[in-house]
Amino acid sequence: MSPTQLAIIAGIGPGTGASVARRFASKYTTILLARNIDNLESIERSITDKGGRAKSISADVSNPESISRAFDKIKQEFPDATCAAAVFNATGPFVKKGILDITVEEFDAGYGVSMRGALLFAQNTLPLLLKHNDLKSEDHHPPTLIFTGASASLRGNAKFSIFGAPKFGLRGLAQSIAREFAPQGVHVAHAVIDGPIDIPQHQFFLKDKPKSESIDPEAIAETYWSLHCQSQRCFTHEVDIRAMGEKW
Amino acid sequence: MSPTQLAIIAGIGPGTGASVARRFASKYTTILLARNIDNLESIERSITDKGGRAKSISADVSNPESISRAFDKIKQEFPDATCAAAVFNATGPFVKKGILDITVEEFDAGYGVSMRGALLFAQNTLPLLLKHNDLKSEDHHPPTLIFTGASASLRGNAKFSIFGAPKFGLRGLAQSIAREFAPQGVHVAHAVIDGPIDIPQHQFFLKDKPKSESIDPEAIAETYWSLHCQSQRCFTHEVDIRAMGEKW
Amino acid sequence: MSPTQLAIIAGIGPGTGASVARRFASKYTTILLARNIDNLESIERSITDKGGRAKSISADVSNPESISRAFDKIKQEFPDATCAAAVFNATGPFVKKGILDITVEEFDAGYGVSMRGALLFAQNTLPLLLKHNDLKSEDHHPPTLIFTGASASLRGNAKFSIFGAPKFGLRGLAQSIAREFAPQGVHVAHAVIDGPIDIPQHQFFLKDKPKSESIDPEAIAETYWSLHCQSQRCFTHEVDIRAMGEKW
Amino acid sequence: MSPTQLAIIAGIGPGTGASVARRFASKYTTILLARNIDNLESIERSITDKGGRAKSISADVSNPESISRAFDKIKQEFPDATCAAAVFNATGPFVKKGILDITVEEFDAGYGVSMRGALLFAQNTLPLLLKHNDLKSEDHHPPTLIFTGASASLRGNAKFSIFGAPKFGLRGLAQSIAREFAPQGVHVAHAVIDGPIDIPQHQFFLKDKPKSESIDPEAIAETYWSLHCQSQRCFTHEVDIRAMGEKW
Repeated sequence: MSPTQLAIIAGIGPGTGASVARRFASKYTTILLARNIDNLESIERSITDKGGRAKSISADVSNPESISRAFDKIKQEFPDATCAAAVFNATGPFVKKGILDITVEEFDAGYGVSMRGALLFAQNTLPLLLKHNDLKSEDHHPPTLIFTGASASLRGNAKFSIFGAPKFGLRGLAQSIAREFAPQGVHVAHAVIDGPIDIPQHQFFLKDKPKSESIDPEAIAETYWSLHCQSQRCFTHEVDIRAMGEKW
Repeated sequence: MSPTQLAIIAGIGPGTGASVARRFASKYTTILLARNIDNLESIERSITDKGGRAKSISADVSNPESISRAFDKIKQEFPDATCAAAVFNATGPFVKKGILDITVEEFDAGYGVSMRGALLFAQNTLPLLLKHNDLKSEDHHPPTLIFTGASASLRGNAKFSIFGAPKFGLRGLAQSIAREFAPQGVHVAHAVIDGPIDIPQHQFFLKDKPKSESIDPEAIAETYWSLHCQSQRCFTHEVDIRAMGEKW
Repeated sequence: MSPTQLAIIAGIGPGTGASVARRFASKYTTILLARNIDNLESIERSITDKGGRAKSISADVSNPESISRAFDKIKQEFPDATCAAAVFNATGPFVKKGILDITVEEFDAGYGVSMRGALLFAQNTLPLLLKHNDLKSEDHHPPTLIFTGASASLRGNAKFSIFGAPKFGLRGLAQSIAREFAPQGVHVAHAVIDGPIDIPQHQFFLKDKPKSESIDPEAIAETYWSLHCQSQRCFTHEVDIRAMGEKW
Repeated sequence: MSPTQLAIIAGIGPGTGASVARRFASKYTTILLARNIDNLESIERSITDKGGRAKSISADVSNPESISRAFDKIKQEFPDATCAAAVFNATGPFVKKGILDITVEEFDAGYGVSMRGALLFAQNTLPLLLKHNDLKSEDHHPPTLIFTGASASLRGNAKFSIFGAPKFGLRGLAQSIAREFAPQGVHVAHAVIDGPIDIPQHQFFLKDKPKSESIDPEAIAETYWSLHCQSQRCFTHEVDIRAMGEKW
């Protein structure tokens, strides 16, 4: 029997993470990592309804023990598994605060999710991704590790450093991982999401705007899937993503 | 009868252009623009053999009259056509020369292809791309205009300014076009090809290297196709592309 | 009596920090912040020998209490002081480690100095910098806050994420601070030091190289001074710095 | 007798070029290159009034013959001269036009000044700059070649490609020149001027704005001078410059 092929998605809320999980569940057994998994039932069901397999595991990505426990569970349940795709979609709080008003706790928390969390996620998924590389099936795609960034990854705006400075750091980390692991066949990518995503929580400011000004989370998921389908002789490390109507 | 949907590819040689043409020919009537079309027969045949339609037209992209004549032919033969995808893959000479040895003619020629050529190609395809936007079919993809760049688009190396300076310029031009036409629904993208492409002309230096260190032109074509398939609510403007074994 | 004008330099070792301190001491009372101030005597003396004033204060920039204590001392000793220039030159460890070998402690420590430290330094100096803005003397330069970055601030190399990822983050933070405080007249700058600095600790690998391949720390100090002398109508936010013989 | 040390400034109007010329004339015999030198009398006089030496020479930087003639005149009048500093401040027209409205002539003209002009200027000044390197005086600064860029060098805005695309190209060219000639001791720099400069022609839109929102041309000149004063062990290749009140 061939080993289980996993897609491991960290940072699942009602937004991009859910769309990404559903997209990758069309081919892989999908692990949903989130701090609070109480609300993941509907996502799981939307996957199983289509014949897919999904499993939610609670994890605080910024906490080494919590992440270790989550991956122990994964290995216990799927001892022979490889990881075909791992998506780090967790993000620190999007808080607007002037420099003089930021508390150390807030700043640390932003780092904790976006940078320490990304490192821990990479450290736990990379061995499984490398293992996936050994599989040789006909419809095999290279093991893929994707990090979700934002326009704040490239541009430090006034009063957005709690969110933005760690996003810069995550981008640097993603490049380091790519330069170390691409030669071993792992596709490491960083997506710069530039603009608001059309998810329930954003409706308070999106509801009066045309659809062409917000990004479709299903389309982000499709782009991540396309990255995953790229050949080892054609890796894209960075993509930007924006709605046609976005000013940039 | 529904109008003919064109893919117009400029800069067809035995390399990327040919692969891109074949890929887009799976759905669209494909126009092959090249300075010398004598050698395009085998590409045309590889398209028609699979049931596709292709037409080669001779054009010097740097020459306004030549480009006009080529598009007049297109409009004459396909009077109702829209353009689904336009790919500018032409490139000036890849010559290594120190600053003091560059002739004005050489520098002008690099500009002529990579910048003036790109402008002329955009000016001639954009009206057809906008027209495509009006089509509403089930499997409709947004009209797409892709420019092929290189690592030299981002980094001015010593002795490569004949090739590189216009590649910087092309990148700036592509951004301007994107910012003007994305709000009108045209997907404008720029691809940074970072590293050698595995095409016949490169074998003299690639033949002793592992495949993992050169880019597969078929895979580039697949990535361009993925860009074309993105929704208007998820446009990627820039992708980088490199083989897993590339140092960067 | 006019208030004391301070230059506060964080991250003083035998290298750039010392040179910067000496340069700014030609005009300002200079505060030397370092974790270990035992070895700062010779730097202090080189300043006082030339008629300058310098004071060393022990501080761990990554530690909020330690930084608070240091600035309490500054305010106690110089109750009416303004800060003319503040330079954050502290840096986390320059350790080479593959992703799978990095410990959370190491990664946190890199963040602690380069990002949390930079935030704390900014939070403590900005009020004094803003105060300096009110001074109107003939030879007045705008209050200046400079952060020292590295080539790793722009490029995530394999096995250098302990050092590099927080340097990316610091760069993002510096941009946010600039965009918030430049309109209030504070000059915020970020210097990308690209290449080895000619300081005692680097002699083990520099000693056989020509001087033209290493950066002169006195020259870095002079460049920082030039940034400080820029008018409020001509702020440079980012400079790169490298020796003439550096490959880049 | 020691040889004449020249500063050669291309692109002199009533703005930045004039300020730069005056600044460098404090030490060097200054050559003013402009298409129309009829109006350079007052600049020349402001230099000679302070005891400096200046000479205006008519030249169209985009025209190889015109540039050759200008440098022939320089060599005739100053046969033993070296060039201490060369500043390329010429710029194509700042015209706003949508892609479909740009004429080939306009696009070529933008290239002609910003790219071909920059190449010709570099080709003609570099031999004189290299020669300057041989001088060994006490107050010797490294030979310096500076190119004036703009925010459009980094960002392709809608409808600004006539101006912007060649500015991208110029930036790439400047990098190539730096990478080739810095190892030979020539300091090559590129300045990104981000925002309006406070010069007479801009008063129609600046007159109601606070001074803090426009760049002082004298301060740009001072920054260029600071670049010139950098040591060969501390070259800055790129600076950005903006007024404290600039949004960016």
